[in-house]
Amino acid sequence: MADVAASAGVSLTTASYVLNDRAREMRISDDAEQRVRDAVTRLSYRPNRNARSLRTSRTATLGVISDHVASGSYSSLMLSGAAAAARARHHLVVIGETEGDRQLERDLVEELIDRQVDGFLYATRTLLEVDVPDALRTLPVVLLNCVDRERRLPSVVPDEVGAGRLAASTLVTAGRADALFVVGEDATPGALADGLRRQGMAQVLGQAGVEVAGTLRCRWDVREAFATVKGSLAAGTRPTSFVCLNDRVAMGTYQAVQEAGLWIPADVSIVSFDGSELAGWLQPRVSSIALPFNDMGARAVDILLDPDRVPDVVHVPMPMLDGESVAGSHARRSRHLSTS
Amino acid sequence: MADVAASAGVSLTTASYVLNDRAREMRISDDAEQRVRDAVTRLSYRPNRNARSLRTSRTATLGVISDHVASGSYSSLMLSGAAAAARARHHLVVIGETEGDRQLERDLVEELIDRQVDGFLYATRTLLEVDVPDALRTLPVVLLNCVDRERRLPSVVPDEVGAGRLAASTLVTAGRADALFVVGEDATPGALADGLRRQGMAQVLGQAGVEVAGTLRCRWDVREAFATVKGSLAAGTRPTSFVCLNDRVAMGTYQAVQEAGLWIPADVSIVSFDGSELAGWLQPRVSSIALPFNDMGARAVDILLDPDRVPDVVHVPMPMLDGESVAGSHARRSRHLSTS
Repeated sequence: MADVAASAGVSLTTASYVLNDRAREMRISDDAEQRVRDAVTRLSYRPNRNARSLRTSRTATLGVISDHVASGSYSSLMLSGAAAAARARHHLVVIGETEGDRQLERDLVEELIDRQVDGFLYATRTLLEVDVPDALRTLPVVLLNCVDRERRLPSVVPDEVGAGRLAASTLVTAGRADALFVVGEDATPGALADGLRRQGMAQVLGQAGVEVAGTLRCRWDVREAFATVKGSLAAGTRPTSFVCLNDRVAMGTYQAVQEAGLWIPADVSIVSFDGSELAGWLQPRVSSIALPFNDMGARAVDILLDPDRVPDVVHVPMPMLDGESVAGSHARRSRHLSTS
Repeated sequence: MADVAASAGVSLTTASYVLNDRAREMRISDDAEQRVRDAVTRLSYRPNRNARSLRTSRTATLGVISDHVASGSYSSLMLSGAAAAARARHHLVVIGETEGDRQLERDLVEELIDRQVDGFLYATRTLLEVDVPDALRTLPVVLLNCVDRERRLPSVVPDEVGAGRLAASTLVTAGRADALFVVGEDATPGALADGLRRQGMAQVLGQAGVEVAGTLRCRWDVREAFATVKGSLAAGTRPTSFVCLNDRVAMGTYQAVQEAGLWIPADVSIVSFDGSELAGWLQPRVSSIALPFNDMGARAVDILLDPDRVPDVVHVPMPMLDGESVAGSHARRSRHLSTS
């Protein structure tokens, strides 16, 4: 900056005011300001951001500590959503992927604090209740797809209860809820989605005077869902509908249903969760309630950069994607109209 | 650090030598060294890394400029592979996702140079020939899943020609290459995988005295592949095998083949590329040649941090994952052995 000042024929202080956009505030003349800007161009001067951060104590960098978000085939949308939102607000994102290793997590948090990130996103691939490392709390932090046990930290999560209500109401409206089976179970400690979805479903089914007919228990995996649903159908279960706890479970359910010679949606209706690309690849397209990962990542950054943030849990709505796997009211209504 | 020195009763210089692990070199007494270390603990002193980077000109941070790598459902493995390898070598990764916007790309490169990253990975979701922004060349750079037009920069790419050879030799060995159709086409400017795979296949098929029977042209997409293969089968094509240019194309091909009442692999054998999770979800499992994205990300970091790196293009082998979609020599050999 000394070279710029000398070349512009102004003091170092004047050059500094111009370069920090305080020329008007400090009543620098237009002429002096222009000479500084010309000198910057002439000398290809580039301010040293690290030196600047020592003064401002802000690095315009956000740390993202996550378990498997970057490697997850769908959850990585949280990361790209966060990166784009940060970028739009002139921040960059440093990633620290822990693969669930608590020691590595502590090390990464320390390291990012050393590098003076302005704050943290703490993200998990699946919706979890978590214990965050203590050091994390020394800086602004927003939880992404997780909540802390004491609900003391701001969090952005999908509205899983609302999603459960939507799944049930879709099947109730279609007249397909009288033999509704849930496929999948998440017994991971701290995992929340399974329970919250069932809670939402129970609210709606209760009002309609029905209950879930049963749960086909399997991990959220294509092969396991296939084997489980195949076994259940072979044992004589006659569902009117399946609620599959994710799109991979839906794929395995499709395979079992189709192998049994049943048609979707005529013989059995299917609703799923995730709204991943896979939902659109199945035939017929599965009606899937979407995890809004990209939006969630962006929302978490907006909250992190908001100086007035409060420790609320924000529930982002989960919309149902267009699908063809639920027979019912719409088809019946069309028929009714055409015969009236 | 002044507080540490005062608390330890040593000069600032002595404290600095101890904290920079130069105590022995500078003949600091064991007693003084211990007093400094005790003071560090007592005061919870944390060295300011940004101040340190001004001295060393190294931030131990790598910039990753990419088009859609973070948001890609499978390509994000390049990012997690790179982050893990960087971490193992005490570096962190800052991501700059451009979504293919050249102006945003230039801005991000400038910004990362301002933040004094030690070097760049420049990554693309699909294998491309690229023009990298000029500013990128001012720092060490390694290309990941792409090559520059002049081949002047070190690159890490999958061995697509080898993968093409492997696809063809698998089908030749199985006796299924006499009516081999390729499904998919990538006409994107600069896209390389399609052409390189065909080149590898032609080498092996030529030696076996056969040719590709035809190409069913469609984008690398489930729905398009389904419609294209369905149309071709309806028009009377009778393939012995399909080479699908990725796992999504394989999924669409499976749907069309099964809808036509044909069996995989008995009636038609299928080889695919990607080795994504999807390959293992299809029934039967598709024999898919894997893009080694995680390894590629790690290799690129290793090369970037190697002071003796040379501008070579490193071709990472693409292995075939276990599958059940190719009938042939192994099945026949078992039958032969059991009857002998």
